[in-house]
Amino acid sequence: MSALDNISFVLVETSHPGNIGASARAMKTMGLSRLALVRPLKFPCAEATARAAGADDLLHHADRPDSVAEAVAGAQFVLGTTARTRHLEAPVMNPRDAAAEIIRQSALGPCAVLFGPEKTGLSNDDLARCQRSVRIPTGPTFQSLNLAMAVQIIAYELQLAAAAGVPGAAAERRARPASADALAALDEHLMQTMVEVGYFDPERPKLLPQRISRMLAKADLEAAEVQILRGFLSAVQRKRR
Amino acid sequence: MSALDNISFVLVETSHPGNIGASARAMKTMGLSRLALVRPLKFPCAEATARAAGADDLLHHADRPDSVAEAVAGAQFVLGTTARTRHLEAPVMNPRDAAAEIIRQSALGPCAVLFGPEKTGLSNDDLARCQRSVRIPTGPTFQSLNLAMAVQIIAYELQLAAAAGVPGAAAERRARPASADALAALDEHLMQTMVEVGYFDPERPKLLPQRISRMLAKADLEAAEVQILRGFLSAVQRKRR
Repeated sequence: MSALDNISFVLVETSHPGNIGASARAMKTMGLSRLALVRPLKFPCAEATARAAGADDLLHHADRPDSVAEAVAGAQFVLGTTARTRHLEAPVMNPRDAAAEIIRQSALGPCAVLFGPEKTGLSNDDLARCQRSVRIPTGPTFQSLNLAMAVQIIAYELQLAAAAGVPGAAAERRARPASADALAALDEHLMQTMVEVGYFDPERPKLLPQRISRMLAKADLEAAEVQILRGFLSAVQRKRR
Repeated sequence: MSALDNISFVLVETSHPGNIGASARAMKTMGLSRLALVRPLKFPCAEATARAAGADDLLHHADRPDSVAEAVAGAQFVLGTTARTRHLEAPVMNPRDAAAEIIRQSALGPCAVLFGPEKTGLSNDDLARCQRSVRIPTGPTFQSLNLAMAVQIIAYELQLAAAAGVPGAAAERRARPASADALAALDEHLMQTMVEVGYFDPERPKLLPQRISRMLAKADLEAAEVQILRGFLSAVQRKRR
């Protein structure tokens, strides 16, 4: 099995069916086959099939999760694509480094790359589910990169990274990084505990949830460290009850 | 002036106007602005303008040379894109190395990147005008990379190479490489001389012209070396006459 078989591209609320077809073709040229479509505006659609050219098998087999949460359930690593700087976003990588990281993580479990709607990009909530985000560098004056073109560039970098044989986590003897699921569960557990001890008021959230998500995303936590933190949180909760 | 201002993309006999528009947009996102269209099947065209989105200025200002020869006249360096292995082709580079080479050569004069028709790619005659060719790596099973996607990937690599500040020829103190024009003139001069001395029979060319073109392309000749060789050829011709 290729590392690429463990990587899915998740297109979120895509407006133009042509972009879905072109994305499928872009993925397939680079050896990627796992496509998920979250609430596409118009799909299936003849225009998508036409633009897919010989890659309509990816459209036929595309997952249709109802939400981004469902799309990334069970993922080891989630990467979000973003065109602009956001407040409190996950650490931003360039496509080359991001591709190497995904190939490394793909040895540990399924990975997902999220692409947002054409006009607005990923929501802050969706970006909060990502351990890292990636920004494709553009020229300074015109940054209107088409969605399928972004898919093509990320797929191209993944194909290069896979072919280059980025050393897997096992080869590096690095501790196993926490999965996206484990981080999301820790995030929820921490926020819940903060509510219980009266530190966080969900009625007046301000930016705390985003700061927490970002902090956990960029902390590069190991799976074992997440266990420790959750054990601590459980102890706090038991003490309170 | 940016190095990118000295680089033109030449689309040869493009069939689909949508690809022309998408290529213009792909170029503009990466800071490239010089587009040339050689015998497009259908242009201008509403579909091209639509797919260009905000990059229709590139379409309006596109050069319309009658031939590839006219498109590359005066070029310092010509790079051809190719999807498959050819007999006797110019040395093939990967996109990253090719982009670095173009940025370096762009300090010396205008550079051109050729993209062939969607179905057939560049002809052998067009590839013979190229000092180098570039192949975009794909997965093993499906290599049907869309034309505009190929434009996007090469443009992306050029943007990265330009931003990385690839050292120019002057900085490297390397001798000035021969221009594409000078190589083409040497090629013609050599073939003509071969005819005059009875070494080459144009009625029965076999593969000799292609072997010569390829040899000159990959020889990395300096401008001064081309002068020497042409001086030698002229001396041979004078002796004969």
